[in-house]
Amino acid sequence: MKPFESTALRYDGKLWVLDQRKLPEGESWLDITNPDDAITAIRSLAVRGAPLIGVTAAACLGALGFREDFKSVAARLRAARPTAINLAWAVDRMMSCYDSGADVCFEAFSIFEEDRLLCNRISRYGANLIEDGCRIVTHCNAGALATAGVGTALGVLKEAHAQGKNIHVYVDETRPLLQGARLTTWELRKANIPYTLICDNMAASLMRQKKINAAIVGADRIAANGDFANKIGTYSLAVNCRHHGIPLWVAAPFSTIDWRCKGANDIPIEQRDPNEIARDEECWNPAFDVTDAFLVDRFILDHGVFNPEEFCCLDRVRLPSAYL
Amino acid sequence: MKPFESTALRYDGKLWVLDQRKLPEGESWLDITNPDDAITAIRSLAVRGAPLIGVTAAACLGALGFREDFKSVAARLRAARPTAINLAWAVDRMMSCYDSGADVCFEAFSIFEEDRLLCNRISRYGANLIEDGCRIVTHCNAGALATAGVGTALGVLKEAHAQGKNIHVYVDETRPLLQGARLTTWELRKANIPYTLICDNMAASLMRQKKINAAIVGADRIAANGDFANKIGTYSLAVNCRHHGIPLWVAAPFSTIDWRCKGANDIPIEQRDPNEIARDEECWNPAFDVTDAFLVDRFILDHGVFNPEEFCCLDRVRLPSAYL
Repeated sequence: MKPFESTALRYDGKLWVLDQRKLPEGESWLDITNPDDAITAIRSLAVRGAPLIGVTAAACLGALGFREDFKSVAARLRAARPTAINLAWAVDRMMSCYDSGADVCFEAFSIFEEDRLLCNRISRYGANLIEDGCRIVTHCNAGALATAGVGTALGVLKEAHAQGKNIHVYVDETRPLLQGARLTTWELRKANIPYTLICDNMAASLMRQKKINAAIVGADRIAANGDFANKIGTYSLAVNCRHHGIPLWVAAPFSTIDWRCKGANDIPIEQRDPNEIARDEECWNPAFDVTDAFLVDRFILDHGVFNPEEFCCLDRVRLPSAYL
Repeated sequence: MKPFESTALRYDGKLWVLDQRKLPEGESWLDITNPDDAITAIRSLAVRGAPLIGVTAAACLGALGFREDFKSVAARLRAARPTAINLAWAVDRMMSCYDSGADVCFEAFSIFEEDRLLCNRISRYGANLIEDGCRIVTHCNAGALATAGVGTALGVLKEAHAQGKNIHVYVDETRPLLQGARLTTWELRKANIPYTLICDNMAASLMRQKKINAAIVGADRIAANGDFANKIGTYSLAVNCRHHGIPLWVAAPFSTIDWRCKGANDIPIEQRDPNEIARDEECWNPAFDVTDAFLVDRFILDHGVFNPEEFCCLDRVRLPSAYL
């Protein structure tokens, strides 16, 4: 497989993932030597972010050179986490490639490279929405640490900043695992983008004070009707956006769309260990929530910007064939 | 001063406060030997909860036997924290007593005892709103740890449970200082009330799933128009209640009402150390937010249950004279 490198995934003859559990304190890389390493890294959130776990699974299948057990390994990788459809999408694409007898190494590299380019396209489309002086809240991390490129939601913010627009980002800390506080602030500091870290329960108060102009988030799965799953807390933010008349933008590549899911009820929601919240067994800890399409102002996709009505009219036929 | 004892405040010749920063791991009591001890305990949140900090300040003035410096000590206590009006209310009452030459020890004991009785009245009025099978979300801690009695919002839930109603409480962990996760769960376990601990950003998702029937919170200050301040995150919860058609109940004694505050803009909001959130200087950390009166379904006060329109018609004349 050709070598590649992104912020959190690297192939140089060996496959490496940045251990995101240790950010921002330390930057240590884990050597992925077998499928169980990859599954453990995905389940434990050492590697996370919907596009990135798909790319990582594909890279694992491309890099580790399986023969007769390709399909069983693929099936196990595919089941590592249930909500983000990108994982299933990437593994299915690798299986099709394998079935057709084509080069799985080339396919894995292509998936990496395409995700990088998709981020650029999303970022440029989304940056058009952002005006100078815009103050934007984001939730969780949909950046370089969640993709093979500059990110989706964070990619948009980085592009706006690169265009010279004066922006300020409010970062939800994102309980329970603090991806906002640990990962998004790490990326924003590196990009020299001004930010303020807040607890998840504070965004509404900023909105009431008219200090937020827009909210931008990524997605783990978008159903055919535009309902989407994203990190727990996204829905609360979306409801508050609606109450305050603030637009909610959802940035994602086409690989996040699951046309077979009709709506919110079809999206499986991963339940995680209560200990992620507290040493109290009486915890409810869903990793994701679902947000109704009608709460979305714009979907920022790799092939353009669409409102929920337009999104529902999109179908596979209208997508750029290069990406299907 | 006559001895008294509640869950978190005790006078037995010496004045003691339960160090709530150490709950639920340890139950240790701090000896309040001078006004600075009390101010430090209030500022550091060793003692917290709007009614309780008022009662504690009064007890400090009653117990420690000041002479010529009564007024300067009172002024310093009054300024310990800015948002909860109960602190100013209790200190002002002690100052009036002192000015009139009456017995400040008796007045401090009366403030303690009245707060205890007010909790009982609030609890009984509020329990009438709760139906069998009700699932209720609460934020922060408005219980025995926040008052001299059974609590306000939590007092209502305890009374409903004591009446044999089958209830389930969803407890917001309440970032950044986790008063829900540390204190409210501690009280609910003691009371044998079933609960589920959630992150603040999860309540909306439960509401979307129709798993929550009502929200109940305390208040740190209620303005004359019914706008109220409470722990940061209350406003986000209130907006989500409105979006989902779920009633929001605000339980508080009359000492929490500030008739001189016309509305939300008149309520000072305490800003606290960013380190309470993360080791990141770019944090915004308000201890409270304000919620508009129109988002409230019912105010549960010690003299009855009122909707926002009724609340605005209340004035001091109509309050029970025993409590003025």
